[in-house]
Amino acid sequence: MKKRIREYGILIGTHETGALNKITDVPGVTVGHYTVDTDEHKTGVTVIMPCEDNMFANKLTAAAFVHNGYGKTAGIPQIEELGTLETPIALTNTLNVGRVQDALVEYMVTRCEREGVKVTSINTVVGECNDASLNKITERVIGTKEVFEAIESAKTDFEEGDVGAGKGTTCFGMKGGIGSASRLVKIGDETYTIGVLVQSNFGKTKNFVLNGKPMGTFLLERMEEAKKDEGSIMMVIGTDLPVSDRQLKRIIKRAGVGLSRCGSYMGHGSGDIMLGFSTGNRYGYQEEAGVVAVKQLNENMIDEVFEAVGEATEEAVLNSLSMAETVRGYEGNVRYSLTDLYLKEL
Amino acid sequence: MKKRIREYGILIGTHETGALNKITDVPGVTVGHYTVDTDEHKTGVTVIMPCEDNMFANKLTAAAFVHNGYGKTAGIPQIEELGTLETPIALTNTLNVGRVQDALVEYMVTRCEREGVKVTSINTVVGECNDASLNKITERVIGTKEVFEAIESAKTDFEEGDVGAGKGTTCFGMKGGIGSASRLVKIGDETYTIGVLVQSNFGKTKNFVLNGKPMGTFLLERMEEAKKDEGSIMMVIGTDLPVSDRQLKRIIKRAGVGLSRCGSYMGHGSGDIMLGFSTGNRYGYQEEAGVVAVKQLNENMIDEVFEAVGEATEEAVLNSLSMAETVRGYEGNVRYSLTDLYLKEL
Amino acid sequence: MKKRIREYGILIGTHETGALNKITDVPGVTVGHYTVDTDEHKTGVTVIMPCEDNMFANKLTAAAFVHNGYGKTAGIPQIEELGTLETPIALTNTLNVGRVQDALVEYMVTRCEREGVKVTSINTVVGECNDASLNKITERVIGTKEVFEAIESAKTDFEEGDVGAGKGTTCFGMKGGIGSASRLVKIGDETYTIGVLVQSNFGKTKNFVLNGKPMGTFLLERMEEAKKDEGSIMMVIGTDLPVSDRQLKRIIKRAGVGLSRCGSYMGHGSGDIMLGFSTGNRYGYQEEAGVVAVKQLNENMIDEVFEAVGEATEEAVLNSLSMAETVRGYEGNVRYSLTDLYLKEL
Amino acid sequence: MKKRIREYGILIGTHETGALNKITDVPGVTVGHYTVDTDEHKTGVTVIMPCEDNMFANKLTAAAFVHNGYGKTAGIPQIEELGTLETPIALTNTLNVGRVQDALVEYMVTRCEREGVKVTSINTVVGECNDASLNKITERVIGTKEVFEAIESAKTDFEEGDVGAGKGTTCFGMKGGIGSASRLVKIGDETYTIGVLVQSNFGKTKNFVLNGKPMGTFLLERMEEAKKDEGSIMMVIGTDLPVSDRQLKRIIKRAGVGLSRCGSYMGHGSGDIMLGFSTGNRYGYQEEAGVVAVKQLNENMIDEVFEAVGEATEEAVLNSLSMAETVRGYEGNVRYSLTDLYLKEL
Repeated sequence: MKKRIREYGILIGTHETGALNKITDVPGVTVGHYTVDTDEHKTGVTVIMPCEDNMFANKLTAAAFVHNGYGKTAGIPQIEELGTLETPIALTNTLNVGRVQDALVEYMVTRCEREGVKVTSINTVVGECNDASLNKITERVIGTKEVFEAIESAKTDFEEGDVGAGKGTTCFGMKGGIGSASRLVKIGDETYTIGVLVQSNFGKTKNFVLNGKPMGTFLLERMEEAKKDEGSIMMVIGTDLPVSDRQLKRIIKRAGVGLSRCGSYMGHGSGDIMLGFSTGNRYGYQEEAGVVAVKQLNENMIDEVFEAVGEATEEAVLNSLSMAETVRGYEGNVRYSLTDLYLKEL
Repeated sequence: MKKRIREYGILIGTHETGALNKITDVPGVTVGHYTVDTDEHKTGVTVIMPCEDNMFANKLTAAAFVHNGYGKTAGIPQIEELGTLETPIALTNTLNVGRVQDALVEYMVTRCEREGVKVTSINTVVGECNDASLNKITERVIGTKEVFEAIESAKTDFEEGDVGAGKGTTCFGMKGGIGSASRLVKIGDETYTIGVLVQSNFGKTKNFVLNGKPMGTFLLERMEEAKKDEGSIMMVIGTDLPVSDRQLKRIIKRAGVGLSRCGSYMGHGSGDIMLGFSTGNRYGYQEEAGVVAVKQLNENMIDEVFEAVGEATEEAVLNSLSMAETVRGYEGNVRYSLTDLYLKEL
Repeated sequence: MKKRIREYGILIGTHETGALNKITDVPGVTVGHYTVDTDEHKTGVTVIMPCEDNMFANKLTAAAFVHNGYGKTAGIPQIEELGTLETPIALTNTLNVGRVQDALVEYMVTRCEREGVKVTSINTVVGECNDASLNKITERVIGTKEVFEAIESAKTDFEEGDVGAGKGTTCFGMKGGIGSASRLVKIGDETYTIGVLVQSNFGKTKNFVLNGKPMGTFLLERMEEAKKDEGSIMMVIGTDLPVSDRQLKRIIKRAGVGLSRCGSYMGHGSGDIMLGFSTGNRYGYQEEAGVVAVKQLNENMIDEVFEAVGEATEEAVLNSLSMAETVRGYEGNVRYSLTDLYLKEL
Repeated sequence: MKKRIREYGILIGTHETGALNKITDVPGVTVGHYTVDTDEHKTGVTVIMPCEDNMFANKLTAAAFVHNGYGKTAGIPQIEELGTLETPIALTNTLNVGRVQDALVEYMVTRCEREGVKVTSINTVVGECNDASLNKITERVIGTKEVFEAIESAKTDFEEGDVGAGKGTTCFGMKGGIGSASRLVKIGDETYTIGVLVQSNFGKTKNFVLNGKPMGTFLLERMEEAKKDEGSIMMVIGTDLPVSDRQLKRIIKRAGVGLSRCGSYMGHGSGDIMLGFSTGNRYGYQEEAGVVAVKQLNENMIDEVFEAVGEATEEAVLNSLSMAETVRGYEGNVRYSLTDLYLKEL
């Protein structure tokens, strides 16, 4: 019986969570998965829909921070240049990025045509982790059909653990996956939501830390050691707080605090990437005014948001572990769940 | 009868050119095209092969500089993080990046398997320009077959102009395309080659400058004006000079000097990207030594290289124009060649 | 009799200039110099005052772009992090940066105390060029008194040429100095001003280009060659256009277009730095609202601004040359003016 | 009786320490302080000498990483551009950076003249923290004399705690200061040293974590709360491992892991800066060869180094706390030591 980490009484940080304690607490955000679960393939795709309406026609504020660029995430240069997001964000396995990008192009072309939005250039955003230990990664099994199904299944109360892009991932040598968490921050008289979703696939077993407690020695008696910190983690951060792209970049950078507290050293082979978006300012693609009004966080109040992102990232990683089940995959490799290894004893 | 710009007596800069005056003057470099030329589609793919042997097994020194990130080039974060290139570089149209990336994955997986190189992670590098004015871009017609044919056709004396990824591009409102040039630099007692290949697709007509001479007024009497500087330019720079990735980044940044001198203002909608590689240091993927010896340019001597890159980029852009022919494409749009508009009168 | 370049009928670009054709056409901006002119020292300080009121209390939007970081400019990391300017910008010689920084601290501490603004942290911004060929640079002769005098003398119709921080600079082997220019851009119904001020100290003689015309061969017959592109150029860009810091960074980057067109290859030893500020959004240091309203340029209209900055930078460099007089400095070194070498013959 | 954190049985991480467990375990590195301790001023300067010989004549490999740029550290742009260090690194208080820079210029000019090294351009590196709560910071009391004395006093077994640039700093509301630690890493057959020195001046009291154990609640009952994470931390990392500047940047970035584990969220007002140098490759300023040989870490072995830096940073912060004594400073403000608040009870 899998539970979220909080259900074990393990509370990360001090800020209040959103209603679901997921990235989908940010109004308008939904998440969908498509999971491939065959003998040879344990993989999938997870799609974060940042809003309900057409995101190409009304772009969102966005930022990316590359903590470790040993990875193949698509779409970062344009986010850095323009500070906007214009497609859903998809997560998948490393070698499947090209096909998933193409599927997102197809999705946007089709949708924009249907909705009367002219489009000849689209900056698709696709993150990835390498799930080669459980998935025959050289065969790219995620294509247009799978991406479209993930999008169609998107909802607020989405699944975590070994689903979608998390089906085949490994974290500290245990079964990793998709995890999420959220925090509320009060800025002036308003309350805003910061949500995080991770695809966890990093870490040496000896370095795992559970809410401050080193678990390496304990785990090494029960499992095969992951001796390298490789494989990557994608951290997607969404918020309804009105921020500039620069502010958003500062905010998502603090996901690294949460990651560090789980035991990561941002290992050489681990592409550690933060992708952020805000629904607080939208940019119409056919805007005609010369100067537009935008809202921006008073930066003197940003510390609460930094803490919220750090906490939510740490908890999202732990949820990705606690919600995953033991998986046996390609070539018989097994990744045991944190639940089987430890949590079920609590 | 199309000619290279130098054949008109227009000599850019002062440095000596390589034998072919192309990027393929760098030993080991070859270039191949696949061109799609139908009523609806004027597009293609151009592949730069940076070496003959397996580039995943023996990675090359690499760097990227994003002058304007309004574009979809794949592979930049890992180049920035690790300073290496491990696949061919492909250029294509904007919406086709995903499919071409996937084709490069297929190429590398197949080749590595054949050559006994274990691979589960590959950072493919794909640049792009938006050729939507001549090409029905929402249909992505470049796939695995086309990329493989481009690779197989790679040679040193490759074609320029409206071929491969340059088939559908537009430059200053004229027909752009693929262009190349090279320069020799003497460092100490050795002579090294700097080669540039561009896919040109940028510029307002009024701003075009031909070797210092403003051509806007002349051209505007003869053609329909390109009123926006949009569409992008990919600048691929290769060299056999041994440099560090930081040095290489400094070097390729100076391609912007040549670009500026052609009349570009690095327009908002023009993703201006420099991608560089050096064959001067290679990195074995299974290196076992703890510390390796590398060679590095004495940085006090880098100025000649800066000038060489600036000059070669300016000449490569002009070659992309002079070697292109007038093309009539999608929806009857026509892009006249610089030859038809002006050069033939010389 | 020295004249600005435009008075010789040499018109750079196509955009309309401001009333003075100087950075001070941006409302509120003033510039002051202090010049040291002794046998051993040809140097000085130039201060750009970005507004009349207290800039620490009401910070301006700011951005920096480091085209070549071989330089000692102070204040860049905080501008990059926060996107704001909170002091005047001072320019001086390379080894004098520390003393000028300290003088700006003194100025701000004193002024803030007088104006009732609490201050314990100040990010002073000081740019520099190396004027060692005319100035005994190891003796730092610019201190608090000199900086204060420069500030007190600040006005809109300031001098150009061999004054202030331009007293000892060398450009293409000729006498460089301070130069300025401005352009008007119409965005929607409003007209905004983009102003540029440069401290020019770069370039090989053989590479000098005057409005598209290569002048190297001509000059080399008349003067001692500058064989290295070293020494730096500071480019300060001001505007009243409301922009975000990211937009401003994109804008000031295009100063490189103008610089390239003058004949620079951004040489190894030339720290080429762009510093930008906008008076279009101000940030109160004691803001109490949680979310503030800001104005932002519709980015689809940014191309005019890119062209304006490129043009104004090219003209500012040429003004720094045409307004300078021949100077004989430290150890008898002489730098001839462009006027004496060429322009007076026009 | 103050002790280092390890003497309390609190062991951070798993890697072996160097002989002194300080940055000076890196051969050639020494550290000196000058402390100002008056009623109004609790401040000082700490100088890290990266080698014994002339560092301008034989530059060291260097890198900087700006985790939070809300700070005034001097020298970063040139380190980023050239990847070298050519002066000592000095740490001081925020408003004193200009004067300390000028003192380092004086030091290098004098030393180079004495040692026959021609110098007209020097990139001094000065980090800072804001010690305004204990120090009347608007009066800059550190000048040439103080910097020279710090340099002259430099040795391997230097003091930690409330000395030098750490005299007036505050960390988690307690007395911060200078702290150091080191780790040994075995790469191939060789053992190399990674050393860290911090100037700690950051953190909210409620967030302090001591080796995984949250201490906020405990501390808040015993002391006045620091409610803001502001003030900065400087992290100087030295090593004798031969690395490229890119590799070094990756390495020093991992200091953020150690910082996060102490309870930092890289708060808005905390300029969190990493400065790194390696003695493993030196660059002669008059090098005449066109291509030079350098040594470089096999990047596949970098993970141990990442862990070493993370661990050593965490321990250095804790040493800065445990070695500091309670200080009463400007306007009667008191900062209690961690020893008085907690450690003495152990």
